[in-house]
Amino acid sequence: MKLAIFGLGRMGANMARRLSRGGITVVAHNRSRAPIDELLHEEDHIVPAYEEADVFRELDGPRVIWLMLPAGAITSQAIERLLPQMSPGDVLVDGGNSRYSETMAHAERVEAAGVHFLDCGTSGGVWGLKNGYSLMVGGTKAGFAHIEPAIRVLAPSPDSGWGHVGPAGAGHFTKMIHNGIEYGMMQAMAEGLAVLRKKSEFDLDLAQVTELWREGSVVQSWLLDLTAEALKQEGQGLEAIRPHVADSGEGRWTAIEAIDLGVAAPVMTLALQMRFASQDDEGYGNRVLAMMRNAFGGHVVQRRDES
Amino acid sequence: MKLAIFGLGRMGANMARRLSRGGITVVAHNRSRAPIDELLHEEDHIVPAYEEADVFRELDGPRVIWLMLPAGAITSQAIERLLPQMSPGDVLVDGGNSRYSETMAHAERVEAAGVHFLDCGTSGGVWGLKNGYSLMVGGTKAGFAHIEPAIRVLAPSPDSGWGHVGPAGAGHFTKMIHNGIEYGMMQAMAEGLAVLRKKSEFDLDLAQVTELWREGSVVQSWLLDLTAEALKQEGQGLEAIRPHVADSGEGRWTAIEAIDLGVAAPVMTLALQMRFASQDDEGYGNRVLAMMRNAFGGHVVQRRDES
Amino acid sequence: MKLAIFGLGRMGANMARRLSRGGITVVAHNRSRAPIDELLHEEDHIVPAYEEADVFRELDGPRVIWLMLPAGAITSQAIERLLPQMSPGDVLVDGGNSRYSETMAHAERVEAAGVHFLDCGTSGGVWGLKNGYSLMVGGTKAGFAHIEPAIRVLAPSPDSGWGHVGPAGAGHFTKMIHNGIEYGMMQAMAEGLAVLRKKSEFDLDLAQVTELWREGSVVQSWLLDLTAEALKQEGQGLEAIRPHVADSGEGRWTAIEAIDLGVAAPVMTLALQMRFASQDDEGYGNRVLAMMRNAFGGHVVQRRDES
Amino acid sequence: MKLAIFGLGRMGANMARRLSRGGITVVAHNRSRAPIDELLHEEDHIVPAYEEADVFRELDGPRVIWLMLPAGAITSQAIERLLPQMSPGDVLVDGGNSRYSETMAHAERVEAAGVHFLDCGTSGGVWGLKNGYSLMVGGTKAGFAHIEPAIRVLAPSPDSGWGHVGPAGAGHFTKMIHNGIEYGMMQAMAEGLAVLRKKSEFDLDLAQVTELWREGSVVQSWLLDLTAEALKQEGQGLEAIRPHVADSGEGRWTAIEAIDLGVAAPVMTLALQMRFASQDDEGYGNRVLAMMRNAFGGHVVQRRDES
Repeated sequence: MKLAIFGLGRMGANMARRLSRGGITVVAHNRSRAPIDELLHEEDHIVPAYEEADVFRELDGPRVIWLMLPAGAITSQAIERLLPQMSPGDVLVDGGNSRYSETMAHAERVEAAGVHFLDCGTSGGVWGLKNGYSLMVGGTKAGFAHIEPAIRVLAPSPDSGWGHVGPAGAGHFTKMIHNGIEYGMMQAMAEGLAVLRKKSEFDLDLAQVTELWREGSVVQSWLLDLTAEALKQEGQGLEAIRPHVADSGEGRWTAIEAIDLGVAAPVMTLALQMRFASQDDEGYGNRVLAMMRNAFGGHVVQRRDES
Repeated sequence: MKLAIFGLGRMGANMARRLSRGGITVVAHNRSRAPIDELLHEEDHIVPAYEEADVFRELDGPRVIWLMLPAGAITSQAIERLLPQMSPGDVLVDGGNSRYSETMAHAERVEAAGVHFLDCGTSGGVWGLKNGYSLMVGGTKAGFAHIEPAIRVLAPSPDSGWGHVGPAGAGHFTKMIHNGIEYGMMQAMAEGLAVLRKKSEFDLDLAQVTELWREGSVVQSWLLDLTAEALKQEGQGLEAIRPHVADSGEGRWTAIEAIDLGVAAPVMTLALQMRFASQDDEGYGNRVLAMMRNAFGGHVVQRRDES
Repeated sequence: MKLAIFGLGRMGANMARRLSRGGITVVAHNRSRAPIDELLHEEDHIVPAYEEADVFRELDGPRVIWLMLPAGAITSQAIERLLPQMSPGDVLVDGGNSRYSETMAHAERVEAAGVHFLDCGTSGGVWGLKNGYSLMVGGTKAGFAHIEPAIRVLAPSPDSGWGHVGPAGAGHFTKMIHNGIEYGMMQAMAEGLAVLRKKSEFDLDLAQVTELWREGSVVQSWLLDLTAEALKQEGQGLEAIRPHVADSGEGRWTAIEAIDLGVAAPVMTLALQMRFASQDDEGYGNRVLAMMRNAFGGHVVQRRDES
Repeated sequence: MKLAIFGLGRMGANMARRLSRGGITVVAHNRSRAPIDELLHEEDHIVPAYEEADVFRELDGPRVIWLMLPAGAITSQAIERLLPQMSPGDVLVDGGNSRYSETMAHAERVEAAGVHFLDCGTSGGVWGLKNGYSLMVGGTKAGFAHIEPAIRVLAPSPDSGWGHVGPAGAGHFTKMIHNGIEYGMMQAMAEGLAVLRKKSEFDLDLAQVTELWREGSVVQSWLLDLTAEALKQEGQGLEAIRPHVADSGEGRWTAIEAIDLGVAAPVMTLALQMRFASQDDEGYGNRVLAMMRNAFGGHVVQRRDES
């Protein structure tokens, strides 16, 4: 099998590697040359495509083009640009983190041109190359049949860690909710560790605690495995790490989706909001509270220069 | 009527003032002399009691002793010390912020000696002197009858803003939950203002917005009145105020009580926890999260010296 | 002054009444006749407009048309329909609960036609007729000048409870956040009362407690006033009321806005989500949890027919 | 090695089995005979102890007695009863779910008598027999040395899944926080599934989705494994399961501990509170909210008999 990957960032490049190692030929395209050359140098089944036109030259019909691009404008523009160059029966895969509602619009447009459209939610991060990716695919059955061989190579095993979960949009939707759950699980673990650490009288070794939970306990999980490893490497104090937690589109979209659907999702939502709090350098709400306490109770307000 | 107040901090001294202005004679006792002298100088119906023994000399039976002391050990010790000096039929009032479960233990001990015990939850802060206090009293009817005249003077009006709400402990319990509600209301308002402020494109004047809400709106409230006044005085940026929000026992006890009773109280509890977050200079949980994101996704961790 | 009100629902009809009583002539239009006739019968300064065309006949330029219609499609369609009939210099007011982003689009379209557009967030509910409304207006200064006389009549007093807060959209935005705060305050109060009630050993009378908080306490507020009155009328058990809490667009939009702005607003958001939980008859998430507990711990799952 | 287990409930009996299969002789005691006989019949290295006195007869010094009893009064009473019968150098292990503060008091009392005291937090549920238990042990090094051989047998492997984490109390403390994290992880997963299910347009198969997440995804975890299995067996609708989620002491204690320490733990706490909401048949807070909405906005309140 042969397919093209557009976008050789962290995720795209590693997926190209895993496909190549699984015997699938990857026509590798990227805006800049360096990641293409790197792949070419390292892997056996890579065909370089320095220009978009090269991709179309190298692929035979039905062509499979797999986008691994930043969600939003860049993905939308790529679809607009590529679609006129594709032929009925070709296959376009969005393997990035697009918002599922945009994906549904993309699908309608692409399918109207007779081109198959598939959305593939992809989890696994930097570990996917080695362990395989968890893949949630949306789209038609006919379209999915074209990419199933690649999916089986990308997945942890040919028969696990992947699924054709529903129509177009369902793949990105499922991946979005997956990330919402991930936010909640991460926050739960971080809170637990923060409580353990604050209990200084027990002088717990959090690298030890997380390590021992990895087997037999109810909280055993991959996030715990990574946490235990990182605490060992970083030292449990994490003094060097800034307590600032970024968030990505999918966490926000999950929280908004729950509101739109009228489903209570307090833990997933709060996990997001605690990240906002970590990002908040102004602390306006807290100033308001400190001011209020002063106003009704005469509680002393700490002025900036005292802090 | 004549009664003694023990403890002339911000609350106790103002209550003595309001009682004196209402024609009730206050035997004023405090560990240090200055607040006694200040009261004596300012108000008409103050009898100084520089020593505890003076209190007993100045009061006729049944003696009413009203404690306005810090909750916890100081209040408990005062009760232990005073009880042997009191006579059956005397009245001991705890007007501070004791935890209701301790209050119930105090009541049992005091009532066993034939002395009436009343717990008086007191709300109103620094404004109570002028506007009157909201008073929630627990204890027996017989005991309450002794202090009702003082309650009517302390309250905003003789017939409103006070109540004998239940048996011993019920006063402090009701006040505790009052504070829990207060936490939630404050947090709601602070969050709303923070969102308004973040929406910089509208360049809203929050002093104006809070002022206009004061009449006619659903959120009109005393907390809003104070907020509007303070925003006018401080300037809406609040740049000089440190975004650090202290918390007191009652907010914590309310959250714990809800857990003990198995009642979902997410808003009151979260309002407390957001204060904890404002107090957290270490940010350990957030470091853990930033570390995890790096571990699974290769997301860049900001090191301290980059921030 | 003379203006037209479109939409005589609960809010629109009462606003017409208050304007009429304040000496402003109201051309009253509604899809159905009955509310027009009712106003005509009750108030002095009402001009009936059974057809839209009547409105234009009755108003002199610059015409002020004030929409009090359901947000969303109905308001948008009304604007589309009316705009071609209006003349440069006329004034269109959206006094409903439109989403501010839609309002901004409406404003752009309307102003492009030379017609002034103003968005007026209106708080006060069924009490506005008597007490006046809290009014948050967005739009240009020139446009605002046209409606200021009416605003002063609708407001609690000519000089309070209203404000021209910013450009188009700012009025609805401010009202939206007002409602978010309202959700949080309501939830705080409801939680507090639920804890008080659960503490059965104190046998508290919640009608008494809420009544006494109304003066002097930190939680004094209009919501508390209403709660105290209602508990008196309904009886504190509220047995007859279904524990199902509806939500409206503004609560959801506030939560989403906070997410879009990256501002932590946990209390406003949770207040919304607890309403979702109250609406949830399926309880799927809770079934999942009960199932999980059984799966790892052998905890007994209650089957439906046992419950 | 030989030790006694007191309490052959679900956890105690399975631990006895795992120890016996690992070559450790278990003197098995239980209030009722049946579980003892069952063990005796099934396993090779079981010595029955129908009376407490039998335990002391069967064990040689230093005797190791391992309590697997319900936390609270039953465990405390057992310690009171057993301690006078033990000798200096003997070892008492509390392998149940005692609150760590009680454990610290127990330890002080037991150690004062020269008997080693160890607290062993035990995770693993019904799967521990097969997979091994995750064991968090508090106490002195000297005491721990006595039970280490048994710990290595109970654990998933001799060298993983267990740890001597700190002084007395640290084992139960660590286990308590473990459960708090577990609550948060469970709630995150349940919320995610509830959102997926509510999105009916995608007609997702949640048994498929959870199954595919089990490999390669960031949320892979044992809780997910169990969820996927259960959804397969139960059918994804879970119609037969009552949406009522019980909670145990450790979830509550974790939330309270976070408050006592002043650590923000919103996700662990909310996960608990959502369980409370699931248990709440009265819905008093929600009635209050519905009543308030009616009071200020005239929103219709649904009466019970309409629902």
